[in-house]
Amino acid sequence: MAAPHVIDGLQYANWSEKVFRQMRAGGVDAVHVTIAYHEMFRETVLNIEAWNRRFERFPDLICQAFTADDIRAAKAAGRTAIAFGAQTPAPIEDDIGLVEILHRLGLRFMQLTYNNQSLLATGCYEDRDAGLTRMGCEVVAEMNRVGMVVDMSHSAERSTLEAIEHSRRPIAITHANPARWHPARRNKSDTVLRALAETGGMLGVSLYPHHLRGGSRCTLDDFCAMVADTADLMGVARIGIGSDLCQDQPDSVVEWMRVGRWTKKIDYGEGSADAPGFPTMPDFFADNRDFPRLAAGLHAKGFSDAEVAAIMGENWLRFFDDSFGPAA
Amino acid sequence: MAAPHVIDGLQYANWSEKVFRQMRAGGVDAVHVTIAYHEMFRETVLNIEAWNRRFERFPDLICQAFTADDIRAAKAAGRTAIAFGAQTPAPIEDDIGLVEILHRLGLRFMQLTYNNQSLLATGCYEDRDAGLTRMGCEVVAEMNRVGMVVDMSHSAERSTLEAIEHSRRPIAITHANPARWHPARRNKSDTVLRALAETGGMLGVSLYPHHLRGGSRCTLDDFCAMVADTADLMGVARIGIGSDLCQDQPDSVVEWMRVGRWTKKIDYGEGSADAPGFPTMPDFFADNRDFPRLAAGLHAKGFSDAEVAAIMGENWLRFFDDSFGPAA
Repeated sequence: MAAPHVIDGLQYANWSEKVFRQMRAGGVDAVHVTIAYHEMFRETVLNIEAWNRRFERFPDLICQAFTADDIRAAKAAGRTAIAFGAQTPAPIEDDIGLVEILHRLGLRFMQLTYNNQSLLATGCYEDRDAGLTRMGCEVVAEMNRVGMVVDMSHSAERSTLEAIEHSRRPIAITHANPARWHPARRNKSDTVLRALAETGGMLGVSLYPHHLRGGSRCTLDDFCAMVADTADLMGVARIGIGSDLCQDQPDSVVEWMRVGRWTKKIDYGEGSADAPGFPTMPDFFADNRDFPRLAAGLHAKGFSDAEVAAIMGENWLRFFDDSFGPAA
Repeated sequence: MAAPHVIDGLQYANWSEKVFRQMRAGGVDAVHVTIAYHEMFRETVLNIEAWNRRFERFPDLICQAFTADDIRAAKAAGRTAIAFGAQTPAPIEDDIGLVEILHRLGLRFMQLTYNNQSLLATGCYEDRDAGLTRMGCEVVAEMNRVGMVVDMSHSAERSTLEAIEHSRRPIAITHANPARWHPARRNKSDTVLRALAETGGMLGVSLYPHHLRGGSRCTLDDFCAMVADTADLMGVARIGIGSDLCQDQPDSVVEWMRVGRWTKKIDYGEGSADAPGFPTMPDFFADNRDFPRLAAGLHAKGFSDAEVAAIMGENWLRFFDDSFGPAA
């Protein structure tokens, strides 16, 4: 049997040859990379242009994934496949027609909200959550049509439940953990996780310290125990990795993520005035070379070879098979 | 005593020399004109460029109003002063810094929402209204600082009440009528109108047929009776005209207002599949030449000369004095 695929459901590194070589060293076959936070359409296209230059410069290390089969081909060629995603709907601005345009350019994931209210839905830092908006319903239908995954990682509860209900195709929470394990604002309730699982959706478990019990001091054993508990709730088939690795980024980047252009003040998001920057990653997951440690930790927790393979990437691959193309 | 000022709190005509000459013929000293519905920043700047060409071409008829004193000077010179406004916050995109930029370019009014959910607040066609968003609170404070009027004409109830409460300066509903007179979705509850009046805000009573009891068949007498009833509720000092005159516009324009780029379907807004276009204006108000008829109708309803002058423009002028400059 061929070696199973290893796929990361979300990263936003300060991209470099070093990072790409670490992906290869860690045996990572595909990564959903964030190409936009608050960037509007034209700025997003600039970010795609920057990726095109990376693909041109490092053809032996990386290539773009438009389909799940592109990931299979990348693995066979010893490369890491890169699938694009946006963490806010800013790239489509106010224009539903940009969904298809950006899909054609390779955008395969879009969050309907990032912390704040968007034109589509409510983010998890708003006090009140009115659910999907009129435009939100229209855009979800268009994303369903072309094959762009609805990602609700940073969305508020009601909006997330309505996206699950309204979407005709399974959705994803690419990077978050269960709130039952660590009750952070970004982590998800059992209600959301059950609804996600029941509709064939996917959860990418996160290694970002603010999502971890114990923060940067979280242990591999505790993390894998959380995965086992989540598998009891959702089923193994509904879980992947979504590391949220923000490697080598300066703190100005986390400020951009949180503040964008919506306020003249500083908003600390998951951080605080005492700890405004990126948190230190846990010891057991510093960069892409640590994916084998995750697999070993899952084995140690009692998962079978097939279950470890599913969580480490095969579940994402199957989900991408079903999600990246036009609706049947 | 100098003749009182006549000011219209909102128009969106297909601008032409004919319309400007009708403004002069009707004795209209100033008009708040819509320069953007769903236009983003760059498109809004193009619309301002188009206005600059009009000011250059018709200097004897029109000039731009940055301040209330510009209106006084325009009247003295026999011109109509034009103050810019936006009916959605699309011109500031996701960028609070564009509030000051657009104010410098002359934008003196901005609606926080237009029918749909925006980044700032909820529009009156959404099913649910979560009120001002995090960005909405920040943007209202910035509008207060630079001197841009918060306009809630198309907003939902809770959002409107929260804007009134949150704004440190009086706000406006530039074009709507009381729902007690005609219960249209765009008309306003007594609760909103009372809160608006108590905080020094202004209501511009609308002549757009969908806001009128009887629609296009509304009579001048009934309209002026509504104004008298509204004055009992809010006080004469809180009322102006906001005609919502959309003269000479093709129906493609009302489709743009309603549909923008947020849906691939047709949304009829206040219209319907049977009546998708602009409605016919009432007999007593066809264009700018009919402002004297409004004044006569108010006189006939028993308003004093001073009260008619206040409603026809002096209230707006005083409000602009207090609203168009930086916060004290």
